Amino acid sequence: MRPSKRAFDEMRPVSFERGVARYAEGSCLVKFGSTHVLCTATLEDKPPPWLRGQGRGWVTAEYAMLPRATHTRTKRESTSGKPSGRTQEIQRLIGRSLRAVTNLPQLGERQIMIDCDVIQADGGTRTASITGAWLALRDCFEWMRSRSIIKENPLRDHVAAVSCGIFNGKPITDLDYAEDSTAQTDANFVITGSGGLVEIQATAEVSVFSPQELQSLLELAQKGVADLVALQKAALA
Amino acid sequence: MRPSKRAFDEMRPVSFERGVARYAEGSCLVKFGSTHVLCTATLEDKPPPWLRGQGRGWVTAEYAMLPRATHTRTKRESTSGKPSGRTQEIQRLIGRSLRAVTNLPQLGERQIMIDCDVIQADGGTRTASITGAWLALRDCFEWMRSRSIIKENPLRDHVAAVSCGIFNGKPITDLDYAEDSTAQTDANFVITGSGGLVEIQATAEVSVFSPQELQSLLELAQKGVADLVALQKAALA
Amino acid sequence: MRPSKRAFDEMRPVSFERGVARYAEGSCLVKFGSTHVLCTATLEDKPPPWLRGQGRGWVTAEYAMLPRATHTRTKRESTSGKPSGRTQEIQRLIGRSLRAVTNLPQLGERQIMIDCDVIQADGGTRTASITGAWLALRDCFEWMRSRSIIKENPLRDHVAAVSCGIFNGKPITDLDYAEDSTAQTDANFVITGSGGLVEIQATAEVSVFSPQELQSLLELAQKGVADLVALQKAALA
Amino acid sequence: MRPSKRAFDEMRPVSFERGVARYAEGSCLVKFGSTHVLCTATLEDKPPPWLRGQGRGWVTAEYAMLPRATHTRTKRESTSGKPSGRTQEIQRLIGRSLRAVTNLPQLGERQIMIDCDVIQADGGTRTASITGAWLALRDCFEWMRSRSIIKENPLRDHVAAVSCGIFNGKPITDLDYAEDSTAQTDANFVITGSGGLVEIQATAEVSVFSPQELQSLLELAQKGVADLVALQKAALA
Amino acid sequence: MRPSKRAFDEMRPVSFERGVARYAEGSCLVKFGSTHVLCTATLEDKPPPWLRGQGRGWVTAEYAMLPRATHTRTKRESTSGKPSGRTQEIQRLIGRSLRAVTNLPQLGERQIMIDCDVIQADGGTRTASITGAWLALRDCFEWMRSRSIIKENPLRDHVAAVSCGIFNGKPITDLDYAEDSTAQTDANFVITGSGGLVEIQATAEVSVFSPQELQSLLELAQKGVADLVALQKAALA
Amino acid sequence: MRPSKRAFDEMRPVSFERGVARYAEGSCLVKFGSTHVLCTATLEDKPPPWLRGQGRGWVTAEYAMLPRATHTRTKRESTSGKPSGRTQEIQRLIGRSLRAVTNLPQLGERQIMIDCDVIQADGGTRTASITGAWLALRDCFEWMRSRSIIKENPLRDHVAAVSCGIFNGKPITDLDYAEDSTAQTDANFVITGSGGLVEIQATAEVSVFSPQELQSLLELAQKGVADLVALQKAALA
Repeated sequence: MRPSKRAFDEMRPVSFERGVARYAEGSCLVKFGSTHVLCTATLEDKPPPWLRGQGRGWVTAEYAMLPRATHTRTKRESTSGKPSGRTQEIQRLIGRSLRAVTNLPQLGERQIMIDCDVIQADGGTRTASITGAWLALRDCFEWMRSRSIIKENPLRDHVAAVSCGIFNGKPITDLDYAEDSTAQTDANFVITGSGGLVEIQATAEVSVFSPQELQSLLELAQKGVADLVALQKAALA
Repeated sequence: MRPSKRAFDEMRPVSFERGVARYAEGSCLVKFGSTHVLCTATLEDKPPPWLRGQGRGWVTAEYAMLPRATHTRTKRESTSGKPSGRTQEIQRLIGRSLRAVTNLPQLGERQIMIDCDVIQADGGTRTASITGAWLALRDCFEWMRSRSIIKENPLRDHVAAVSCGIFNGKPITDLDYAEDSTAQTDANFVITGSGGLVEIQATAEVSVFSPQELQSLLELAQKGVADLVALQKAALA
Repeated sequence: MRPSKRAFDEMRPVSFERGVARYAEGSCLVKFGSTHVLCTATLEDKPPPWLRGQGRGWVTAEYAMLPRATHTRTKRESTSGKPSGRTQEIQRLIGRSLRAVTNLPQLGERQIMIDCDVIQADGGTRTASITGAWLALRDCFEWMRSRSIIKENPLRDHVAAVSCGIFNGKPITDLDYAEDSTAQTDANFVITGSGGLVEIQATAEVSVFSPQELQSLLELAQKGVADLVALQKAALA
Repeated sequence: MRPSKRAFDEMRPVSFERGVARYAEGSCLVKFGSTHVLCTATLEDKPPPWLRGQGRGWVTAEYAMLPRATHTRTKRESTSGKPSGRTQEIQRLIGRSLRAVTNLPQLGERQIMIDCDVIQADGGTRTASITGAWLALRDCFEWMRSRSIIKENPLRDHVAAVSCGIFNGKPITDLDYAEDSTAQTDANFVITGSGGLVEIQATAEVSVFSPQELQSLLELAQKGVADLVALQKAALA
Repeated sequence: MRPSKRAFDEMRPVSFERGVARYAEGSCLVKFGSTHVLCTATLEDKPPPWLRGQGRGWVTAEYAMLPRATHTRTKRESTSGKPSGRTQEIQRLIGRSLRAVTNLPQLGERQIMIDCDVIQADGGTRTASITGAWLALRDCFEWMRSRSIIKENPLRDHVAAVSCGIFNGKPITDLDYAEDSTAQTDANFVITGSGGLVEIQATAEVSVFSPQELQSLLELAQKGVADLVALQKAALA
Repeated sequence: MRPSKRAFDEMRPVSFERGVARYAEGSCLVKFGSTHVLCTATLEDKPPPWLRGQGRGWVTAEYAMLPRATHTRTKRESTSGKPSGRTQEIQRLIGRSLRAVTNLPQLGERQIMIDCDVIQADGGTRTASITGAWLALRDCFEWMRSRSIIKENPLRDHVAAVSCGIFNGKPITDLDYAEDSTAQTDANFVITGSGGLVEIQATAEVSVFSPQELQSLLELAQKGVADLVALQKAALA
């Protein structure tokens, strides 16, 4: 039995609230259970300096947690002077995941900056961020299209992410904080709407895992992402 | 006529939502019109190092804006490496304002850390922060009292804040961003429930102001704070 | 009785020594009793980047204390890596105060950098800095005029500053360190030669203050600034 | 045909030189073709602060490149002020990989610091680092055992790592820089001597990859790690 | 002919003003011509952490320039975030020079922090700093002796410093800024009252120098230091 | 008797291995006994910003130690956030030494960046760095000449460096770490192939030194550098 009483393949209730940030070109408040992330998309007129003159754009991301998103307060990274290694890993992951489904030449010489700010954290903040950011990015592209900044929406597919893990020897999906803290293996899968794999990060926390276990985790993730993509589509309807 | 069409002494709609942060000892989402600030209070077991052994506690604050709280995106201070001068001024002001109504010896050798995170910014973020933080602090103290950590709630009085300014030669209250950007004088008043003055910061932005104008601004502020304190009381009822 | 034995409205002996810095375009060593500040003005050919092409100039300030200006040694901010919040508040205040009496379009696309370095600190370093910096700025503008860099001196008025406070329930003026440490309320007033208010920062340190007390402090400040402006004029004679 | 002319499942020549660092408790210069990494292990008497009093030790790692390890010079991270996101990702990966095969309670309240310094970089620096660091760690543990600091060597198994990728639609193993730059998918596998999976990081660089492709990459990695473990054993013989 | 019209072995007018800093345990304003340095000595109760429990003290130094000590304004190091290489070289030199004449066990487990702040810079700031700091240190030790913190003054000898250089092929002493900028060789000598050598730093700026030239520079320095030590003695009389 | 059993004027075995860094324009692994330094030279197309448009180039250097080059591990400077004072002193010294024998106008508007990375440290890392860097620089210049980037090799002379010290009252040459730690005086001499002096840094560590002792140290250094220059020539043959 999982601490959350959920079935091994049952995700938490997921919701998306689009357009929550009054000033952003696209935004989405995503909730995976008690994990709440505010995702915004900002259009910047210029690509990053190293990409200038190459006829294509870029999508990048920043990620942060409010200090009291967590059970005990987390020190602000503006005070410690720099983003932690964990923060940098996550923001690089979000950026890569979104770029994998974006037609960057179609975006033109521009950059979209995605901000994922965790309002409340109960496990799975990076997977919620990717899944919600896709909606913010999509709405930003629509905003641009409606103003004729671009002709077509450069998104080629949906993308969503889910965490899976092995808890008491059994594969489970969408771990909350209590489950994540005690899981033997922790894996994050980023998968497109058509089932293409974008990122897999699987880590043995306590003991190693077998190729068979990897396969089980992957199957759980495929099911979870299919659900999330259906919810993204419903949010757009 | 003000850009916001409000009467010269009319505040924006104000709301307080208590208990929004699941893990914090006290919290409040405060809205002054389109300015939204999430205030949380965290109990820390130890006072700051320089206060040890003196038999009293401390209340301090940190303040930040989400990058896309603003019309154009603001760079994250964790990226630039340190809080800006403006940020530091505001967090020092919030801390002083709350300490002015707190019986610090009654709090004992502990620290309350207030976090004010601006979700959306349309002027008056520091006054909204102070006003909402008072409720978060109050609920944190009640949380402590209900667990017998303290015997009595150390708050001696309400405290609230309002911005006033001179716009087109006329004093107005609770400026939004459009009004603030064009005001000749910008003043922030922090006042207690019983009318005591805690902080006055008045700045001539374009031209100087007269003692008579200072008096008018003070009177507007007294009225505004009286309204805010009534709303704080209603939120507690 | 004040610790300094001065009358409640009596300032410390004030002196200005112009031209003390051999290389600066303008300079003044200002003394408010045992508080000594070296103010220099540096002409920079370019305005700050965000002001380019707007046909006007800028006046900004930096403030620092020598490590042993104080009773116990203060750590150098170059060692701690960044200016403290207090330092940033003060240098922003000095800059705003001087800009309030400067015709910035008349200055043209240039910046004047004011440096206020506290050689010895006995309370009131920010008010002494503003008052002395006005003379350094004035001499810098004269230096520019004598070289035909500008046609007219862009200063529109004198500006000076004084601290006031409530000590043992009585308003007093120009607090030294011993008085400042024990004052219930601490207020700084920046006022022009013609009596216009530029900045008011009033803070309840121990208990709140009343509107009547604010009025008393303002009257003391008006008298103090009038004296300081007379001394500035004498220094120019 | 791979740019390196190697067969799709052929690794570069691999060598290990143990004991190269005169002062370190354990060390190994590992070469994967033209990628050369100096790995050293340092015994520290104390565990990290957050682990004190828990009766077990820790293994952590730092990773860096010499500025001219690369085709064009890379700026030193001591000059830019902090380790990059990529550096932090790699050093966290090395640490997790080694801890997965270490009996931490057996190590006792101590920390082993692994330093992986890339002398020359031609792709696969993180996989070479993990594989060489295992030998440095093993020799450090032997050094401790021979001095009776620990009774048994806390290593439970070998661990090694290999990169795989999809190049021109075909899975290949142990990519050099030229291959890595043009691969569609880039994956790193960390696997123990007995075939347990420790870490999988797979990233679609250009297009997504299929579950079948993941399976092929995993099989290549299993073969590569088996070869590396055999070479580690030979180096110890 | 030197730009300064001085004879090749003629120093600038030198003066020492002791006790200028009201709060410091020892202080001296030293002038070598237009180079003015304020030196203060601060007694700290504890030695640096790495020296604890060894029964001896330490003397260390910090050095800085006011921004407008120089012809063109120098950026504050608190703004750039860290002391420059040049600053660090100089403060290490000052510390070593003073320790060479201090009986550190006699000082006991304490540290003296010397601050050398350059008020005005016209060449030779490091040699003026060392020479003036000796007086500040001496007065600090006397202050300690008069309070029975130490029994004897731990200074074993005078120490002073002078710069020499080769200008137009001829050795000269105590270079001012104009001379220093065009000298072929720049050398700083730190020498004790009894003629012992403490530090020599000689650098070929334009072309190399010969052993004979080194000898000439040393002789000039010996003469200069003898003069400075006589002036130190006069200042104490 | 020296701890190393060497004669007072006997250097450690010295070797140079040119071309060790596959990607650098010039490189040399230099060994002075157990001190091993990898020196690389990188051609940069542009001079430093402050030298633009002046028709000449620049040679500069960076220096670092691998963490476990030393008996006990040294913290990485990328972790502490900035190069230490010692590091900055050494890299400035290396740069000055090489510039002293380089015809900078002949180099044209380019910069050569020398990296000296200490692989193993047993005293004399700065003197080994200078001596080895000369070969890396020379090979970089030849690389440029062979590609017609420059017409002539801009090196005017050899340069090499040796440390000398007074140990048990006797002058000795090329101190290893054990000798250096206990030497009374520590001196570094940088001398050209034709015997011109470039840099002298002599420091009394324990007691002062006499002019006669300086003379003895210089003579030892002249002999040592002559040997090193002969070995540089042999390495080029």
